[in-house]
Amino acid sequence: MSDEIQNPEAERDEAAYSLGRKDVAAILYAVDIDDRETLTRLMEPLHAADIADLLEQINSYDRARLIRLYDREFDGEILTELDESIREEVIAVLNPQILADAVRELESDDVVDLVEDLDEPQQEAILGALDDADRVAVQQALSYPEYSAGRLMQREVVMAPEHWTVGEAIDYIRSSEHLPEQFYHIVLVDPRMHPVGNVTLGRLMGSARKVKLRDIMEDVFQIIPVDQDEGDVAYAFNQYHLISAPVIDENGRLVGVITIDDAMAVLDEEHEEDILRLAGVGESSLSDSIFETTRQRLPWLVVNLGTAILASIVIAQFEGTLQSLVALAILMPIVASMGGNAGTQSLTVAVRAIATRDLTGSNIWRVIRREAAVGLINGLVFAVMMGVVSLIWFGSPALGMVIALAMIINLLVAGLAGIAIPVVMERVGIDPALASGTFVTTVTDVVGFVAFLGMASMVLL
Amino acid sequence: MSDEIQNPEAERDEAAYSLGRKDVAAILYAVDIDDRETLTRLMEPLHAADIADLLEQINSYDRARLIRLYDREFDGEILTELDESIREEVIAVLNPQILADAVRELESDDVVDLVEDLDEPQQEAILGALDDADRVAVQQALSYPEYSAGRLMQREVVMAPEHWTVGEAIDYIRSSEHLPEQFYHIVLVDPRMHPVGNVTLGRLMGSARKVKLRDIMEDVFQIIPVDQDEGDVAYAFNQYHLISAPVIDENGRLVGVITIDDAMAVLDEEHEEDILRLAGVGESSLSDSIFETTRQRLPWLVVNLGTAILASIVIAQFEGTLQSLVALAILMPIVASMGGNAGTQSLTVAVRAIATRDLTGSNIWRVIRREAAVGLINGLVFAVMMGVVSLIWFGSPALGMVIALAMIINLLVAGLAGIAIPVVMERVGIDPALASGTFVTTVTDVVGFVAFLGMASMVLL
Repeated sequence: MSDEIQNPEAERDEAAYSLGRKDVAAILYAVDIDDRETLTRLMEPLHAADIADLLEQINSYDRARLIRLYDREFDGEILTELDESIREEVIAVLNPQILADAVRELESDDVVDLVEDLDEPQQEAILGALDDADRVAVQQALSYPEYSAGRLMQREVVMAPEHWTVGEAIDYIRSSEHLPEQFYHIVLVDPRMHPVGNVTLGRLMGSARKVKLRDIMEDVFQIIPVDQDEGDVAYAFNQYHLISAPVIDENGRLVGVITIDDAMAVLDEEHEEDILRLAGVGESSLSDSIFETTRQRLPWLVVNLGTAILASIVIAQFEGTLQSLVALAILMPIVASMGGNAGTQSLTVAVRAIATRDLTGSNIWRVIRREAAVGLINGLVFAVMMGVVSLIWFGSPALGMVIALAMIINLLVAGLAGIAIPVVMERVGIDPALASGTFVTTVTDVVGFVAFLGMASMVLL
Repeated sequence: MSDEIQNPEAERDEAAYSLGRKDVAAILYAVDIDDRETLTRLMEPLHAADIADLLEQINSYDRARLIRLYDREFDGEILTELDESIREEVIAVLNPQILADAVRELESDDVVDLVEDLDEPQQEAILGALDDADRVAVQQALSYPEYSAGRLMQREVVMAPEHWTVGEAIDYIRSSEHLPEQFYHIVLVDPRMHPVGNVTLGRLMGSARKVKLRDIMEDVFQIIPVDQDEGDVAYAFNQYHLISAPVIDENGRLVGVITIDDAMAVLDEEHEEDILRLAGVGESSLSDSIFETTRQRLPWLVVNLGTAILASIVIAQFEGTLQSLVALAILMPIVASMGGNAGTQSLTVAVRAIATRDLTGSNIWRVIRREAAVGLINGLVFAVMMGVVSLIWFGSPALGMVIALAMIINLLVAGLAGIAIPVVMERVGIDPALASGTFVTTVTDVVGFVAFLGMASMVLL
């Protein structure tokens, strides 16, 4: 464990990241003094993904100057790696001829990725730069719904009829002019073009020429409908350790393949979405503007303001009680804070378990019982602690008793709300990561204040 | 957006998940009536990963009965897919002979995965079941640090000297008896066994026999040191879209390869860790016991109790103020809650950006300025809202002014603390996801209460 928690930045940077702070400084200096040769030399060892990161990290003024100085070397892959928030800006800065050349180098699925979020005129500029075959491929991909397998798949599939032999398949591959850049399997199809199995290239090469492909094929474990949500695709790859999977249309015909590298990128995006949504932040990136960032965060804060006012209205019902015993005002945030934290723990475990399909109809009641039991135990532990603290602080056994009871009630409710709210949201078709947090803390605030102040007004006054 | 938020469970289940609630019920019924044949038939279409999920979802009593009834069919892969928390239990229930057979089917890197978290006697039982070559391989892997590339890699590498031709490589592969189950590249090595490039199998098959491997090789973009942290390995795969990467020892010699499917599993685990740590939950799974769950969550709640008491001590300094104006007690949770939420938003974006290496020395000051500006704008917006609410509710313009100013101060501080705290934690070598949340809300609670009650005591009394 300890070597995981300890993770000095310096080590990280050297180990798995080729773009250091000094490199960025050197590159910006080359831009400053307009030294194209040095710039090109410094950029040469960088991967397109690193160049995209670099462009995201510098400000808009430096970005434009760098792109203009670097443009002859500009690679289409950099565009696909860029954050959406600055992709349009970069495209607008690029010389149209350079842009056209950059885009023509790309595979059609990368072009889809690139153009799907652009606005009309930029989209057309890019589609216009493609040759006819590629443009048709991109437009077909764009006809599938956003976030579907159809947008994610490669349309170039290496396939063979199931009755072929190893020799026939090898000869076919050797004579093909346009093989996809990366392929790891041959997909076997029946006469109706339904996928029936995979033959890995390793297996193909290791077998005698006269062996039937059918005899060395692996069953296709997962066949992906073209309109399946990309999150489900990523889940299937992760769950079943798939390397590639065939994609079929509504008639069961093979229309493409999805490979694990695309699924991995989607898995990463889905995680990002979950973690940001849990914190009440919409889609966001570090290169978003101040205005854009405010726009993403303000709505959730407004919701939170509403629930905070609700909690205050609850408190206001006990105005008289608070007036006669100010210790209650001092202690009440503790009850609410403990409930909120315990609820968030339980909630996060539930949201994650729903995302990984670990929380199902088969174990939901057992998990609810467990959360209730854990909430009760935690409640008892903190009841004792806070009872003692309050007794020492304010010298009132009755006050200690009230806060102890309120703690037990609130931590039990926190555990139950933390699991029940996301489960209910999922059932009604809302992403449980989206707003559960606010609901859970509202419940724990209200229950905490009512329990604590209500019992206090009965017992202490 | 909308089709992503809408995600009815029913659709998910059918689409990408082969284990439904009804299946589980049917399987448990077969166990109940001791019907081995039906059980085997029902389990037959399930992937090992699904069977592991099934075992995790049912209770311990059913689990033991199911395993005993199913044991002749029990597959080693199920063990590798199981959650650590119940793996030991399942191994203890399995007939030793069945266990030995199951383990012998596995590749050595899967055995490593399986045994690394077991306690001594179970580890020895499994190692004892392996034949000598496999056992040595597993023990060598276990000699690398936990969570390192050495634990993750496959030791079986298909490699070739860089001077070979395509024909020589093909003949070598065809004559090899023990090829790894999955391989996608041949790694070219120089005479000192240093990796110099990759040749994809697709490229190999598409080239003439007399072509030099050197002429069709791709540069190895990322070479992984055997002691590199697995999180950095996963990051590199995701950043550079790697499919496989060579692993070298301290002398630069090739000792293994890591493939993308292993990297994807690590990426998923790292995300899980981040999301759970942000919520103050340690490693956890749904199959953990009540005791285990309490043990994971209690420490963070104790920390939170400490910080909540700190906030209460701050409030206690204004006892007199609260006593004379109870409206302050009613409104003060709103200031704290808004600060806590805004701080968590800013924190989560920062933690995520640190994890994806998007927040670096080059853009840190720009991001801090942005957070400050967003905090200020949000502060102004909610200052106006709360000023108006307080004015209407309590009829006091001065109170409205105080809460408005407190809101501005707290939301500005929240934005800055949300970014500064994780960045500082990362610099001193602590995972920023680990405890930042508690620190940030402590800051916003204390600042919120001091600003609100402090100004109130000066202005209103």
